[in-house]
Amino acid sequence: MPITVVGVDGDDTLWHNETRFNVTQGELRDLLRRHVPDADIDSHLAETEMRNLGMYGYGVKAFTLSMIETAIQVTRGKIPAADLEVILGWGKRMLMEPTELLDGVEATLKLLGKRYDLLLITKGDLFDQESKLARSGLAGLFLGVEIVSEKDVESYRRILERRGIKPEEFVMVGNSLRSDVVPVLELGAGAVHIPYQVTWHHEHVPDESLPRKGWYRIDKITELSRLLDTL
Amino acid sequence: MPITVVGVDGDDTLWHNETRFNVTQGELRDLLRRHVPDADIDSHLAETEMRNLGMYGYGVKAFTLSMIETAIQVTRGKIPAADLEVILGWGKRMLMEPTELLDGVEATLKLLGKRYDLLLITKGDLFDQESKLARSGLAGLFLGVEIVSEKDVESYRRILERRGIKPEEFVMVGNSLRSDVVPVLELGAGAVHIPYQVTWHHEHVPDESLPRKGWYRIDKITELSRLLDTL
Repeated sequence: MPITVVGVDGDDTLWHNETRFNVTQGELRDLLRRHVPDADIDSHLAETEMRNLGMYGYGVKAFTLSMIETAIQVTRGKIPAADLEVILGWGKRMLMEPTELLDGVEATLKLLGKRYDLLLITKGDLFDQESKLARSGLAGLFLGVEIVSEKDVESYRRILERRGIKPEEFVMVGNSLRSDVVPVLELGAGAVHIPYQVTWHHEHVPDESLPRKGWYRIDKITELSRLLDTL
Repeated sequence: MPITVVGVDGDDTLWHNETRFNVTQGELRDLLRRHVPDADIDSHLAETEMRNLGMYGYGVKAFTLSMIETAIQVTRGKIPAADLEVILGWGKRMLMEPTELLDGVEATLKLLGKRYDLLLITKGDLFDQESKLARSGLAGLFLGVEIVSEKDVESYRRILERRGIKPEEFVMVGNSLRSDVVPVLELGAGAVHIPYQVTWHHEHVPDESLPRKGWYRIDKITELSRLLDTL
């Protein structure tokens, strides 16, 4: 059955995301180093984020709350409120900054849009994702937008069923093996992996647990159109 | 055309929500009064929430971040980090506490579900709303769930179009005139208003701007089935 619908991830597939979290995390390290020179901020923040994931979900607001919690805990409550206000400001900056597209994204989507129905399928904070999409200027290129709290087999199944799409005619494209490839293959659809320069530790999938076939890897989104032609 | 689909709001229509925010806000007042006895905490928090709404959207995480910002600002940075950690804890408690249903909700939905397709249409933080629905035990009673970042004419139009529902066969039920009644009437659908004991200032609609007809008001959700019978 020919591919008719292409699902595309947002964060780190269409626009830069993880690098921005990393930049802010670097600022947090610098800020906290002044209070606790020897603390391992990255590990502490990662533990805090994982502990809070079931309550907060993904996104900038969750990240900001976890940064504040980390800052209070590693300094044993010694951090002045003014420094915490600086952290609040970083979160706002992240929420307001322009959506920076990866190279070739707009041209590729326009090209694909002539042959396939395009769905944006992205996970995270609803408000944050809608706002990023609006700022990206790409909204008009998608037939539909699906923002889910977790990209697992069930959430993909619901999306395809509701839209009357058969798995055999669907391909998902994204930078995360865990979220964009593994669950989609389990449904019997295809997937294309486009690695981003940085992978969040939470999204890492060990090679041995990857499915053997049904998915492809390319270096850049500009190679996507040629790959889909061959499927 | 007979009603075939009933949309139902979640917060303060099916389960208590605003009262919980009020309880936490009372705790914030008590906490901050120890530092700044004369400050008008409620006004300051309301201003902060409105200023942040375009960045944060709705929900507990947004509320927690605005409480922290308020606490830092009204104390001019004098608040100790340990007190801010307490505020973080309130946010987590709100995210984790059981979903407390209003009286008669489950029986009413079961009754309505025999005659109408039921859609939960709720606004706010995606993760938070999904989690509340899961904890409510009501998920199985709805044909579909729509969580939107803002309940306006456009978001209702999208929901009805995507599901192939004509406005004349749709009624929305909820506690907010601004979110559950006004935009729905503008689409040509019907609406039922069930006031909650507390209305968030942001949701207030002056009487003179209310549409004259096409909507109904009842005191309790248990009266809903009888009202719908008469439409």
